[in-house]
Amino acid sequence: MSIVESVRWSPDGTAVRIVDQRLLPERYLERDLRTLEEIREAIATLAVRGAPAIGIAGAMGLAVVAEAARDATADAFARRVADAAEAIRAARPTAVNLPWAVDRLVRRAASTTGDNLAIVAALRDEATAILDEDRAMCRRIGEHGLPLVPDGTRVLTHCNAGALATGGIGTALAPIYLAAEAGRRVEVIVDETRPLLQGSRLTAWELTRAGIPVTIITDATAPALMRRGGVDLCLVGADRIAANGDVANKIGTYGVAVAARHHEIPLYVAAPASTFDPATPDGDAIEIEQRAADEVRRTFGRLTAPPDVPVCAPAFDVTPAELVTAIVSDAGVHYPPFDFRLS
Amino acid sequence: MSIVESVRWSPDGTAVRIVDQRLLPERYLERDLRTLEEIREAIATLAVRGAPAIGIAGAMGLAVVAEAARDATADAFARRVADAAEAIRAARPTAVNLPWAVDRLVRRAASTTGDNLAIVAALRDEATAILDEDRAMCRRIGEHGLPLVPDGTRVLTHCNAGALATGGIGTALAPIYLAAEAGRRVEVIVDETRPLLQGSRLTAWELTRAGIPVTIITDATAPALMRRGGVDLCLVGADRIAANGDVANKIGTYGVAVAARHHEIPLYVAAPASTFDPATPDGDAIEIEQRAADEVRRTFGRLTAPPDVPVCAPAFDVTPAELVTAIVSDAGVHYPPFDFRLS
Repeated sequence: MSIVESVRWSPDGTAVRIVDQRLLPERYLERDLRTLEEIREAIATLAVRGAPAIGIAGAMGLAVVAEAARDATADAFARRVADAAEAIRAARPTAVNLPWAVDRLVRRAASTTGDNLAIVAALRDEATAILDEDRAMCRRIGEHGLPLVPDGTRVLTHCNAGALATGGIGTALAPIYLAAEAGRRVEVIVDETRPLLQGSRLTAWELTRAGIPVTIITDATAPALMRRGGVDLCLVGADRIAANGDVANKIGTYGVAVAARHHEIPLYVAAPASTFDPATPDGDAIEIEQRAADEVRRTFGRLTAPPDVPVCAPAFDVTPAELVTAIVSDAGVHYPPFDFRLS
Repeated sequence: MSIVESVRWSPDGTAVRIVDQRLLPERYLERDLRTLEEIREAIATLAVRGAPAIGIAGAMGLAVVAEAARDATADAFARRVADAAEAIRAARPTAVNLPWAVDRLVRRAASTTGDNLAIVAALRDEATAILDEDRAMCRRIGEHGLPLVPDGTRVLTHCNAGALATGGIGTALAPIYLAAEAGRRVEVIVDETRPLLQGSRLTAWELTRAGIPVTIITDATAPALMRRGGVDLCLVGADRIAANGDVANKIGTYGVAVAARHHEIPLYVAAPASTFDPATPDGDAIEIEQRAADEVRRTFGRLTAPPDVPVCAPAFDVTPAELVTAIVSDAGVHYPPFDFRLS
């Protein structure tokens, strides 16, 4: 099975190789990022997207920039690395994984004794560790979720929590990939996921590429499909999971959850344990980012609404824990009542 | 209040004046249709759309074509009218109102004694009657629905069941227009209604034009908005209503109904009594048209999914009667248990 690798080292190790997600699904193009500007721009313009993938690309990018500066004086080298860390960190202000990954490299550099080359080697090592940990995390989610996806399952998913969003085989899609790898017949129904269509543009693309049967639907079609028995289970990702199990995820997830409950279809959430937020007691405490109105009013460049009409465009919604059948993380499968205060 | 008139006579009575809905919301253009080809093309290309509006435009168009042929011999005149009726009837094969309206004019012509001018006058009279009946129907729906929309109501609607779809003030939007006319504060939350975006393109446009506050949302945002208390009631149209009260309407209506029930929000359906189908016992007996896959895969010209990925694209879904709080028709407000076997 051919699962896309959204971010990795180029074969000679001198560049960060990414799949340019701005061009999908029209064109599949890998790009090698070698300079700070290329790395910053790829992150800022969503050539690479998905919280884990952004963190990995930022960390690997910092290592690449450091390597290019290896012949400078120790002071100039340190300055170049610090400046690059700042620039990369600022490329996507709201992504939590990006500063986390960059800071990990900055700390590793600070704790490394030796010359520029020693620091370059340490940074590369740390970036590779972040990539490898992410891959392992995805695979563990897949393994824990595998029993939930028996032969013949028709899975509905929303948005993209797949290989394109991570360094590995994705989070929500990981159990699906492993089920297919194990020879089980799996069909995936993909919500197109307005307004940015990550479902039809990205999830449908990466699953099709892996040979897994896909059907795309508009988001509002899902309940009708459930009513006629076309969905066996729902499997979605998460951006943040509160201590009580309330799940913040891409807008529309809550509607999937409500419809799933109405039709007595299980709803599983798959996410890294790092998504658990013990400091947030419940979903009401999660601040919801509002997206730009024109993402809805101007559908891919064309005006599709009165130009100044108000838009309510939350990026995420909150699915209360009571609608979640189970949460699959790299730590295992968690059933209600959820309690992530101590994770 | 300025409620758009989507189809009417031109001031000198020689043409069918329509609002060209293909250009909305980017441009508001009225067009006067004078020839058979202009009328046929306007209907076929959705310059005029909405079942009632199509029927009216077809009938008025036939009267215009007849008038242009009034100086021909009686035989040639009869042939021209018959050919035009056939061409107009075929402009939108699935629209029920179109053949119904055209056939009404054909019967009126057949029962009219006198010369060409007498027949032209009879056809114009019959077409005007169809327009006036539709306007009166809309207003009666509005009057029956008015008590359901008290001051301060936030109404969620889906698709376009408004003035643009009818000869009058719409069906689902009629109670909203009358509530606003009565000085009540009404806010309308409009589902954009993928894939063709009739909500954001048309409903938001006509309500904004009438000075009624509108907020547009992606379809999958509605449940989250309901959860945070932002919706007081849902009001949608219907394409067909089975004898038991099951409602076929634009895809996504069922999801609105499921979410409304989950949040204990009333769901009202507004439609002409002619929508009741006593011959169809329940929703399972309603055949659901499938739309072209590229309406979902190619969002306004751009490829937004793998080019050959399968799409499930039903045009309508069925909302079972048990999720409907009441049905508002020109005959009154109908409460469960519904029984339209004898209407």
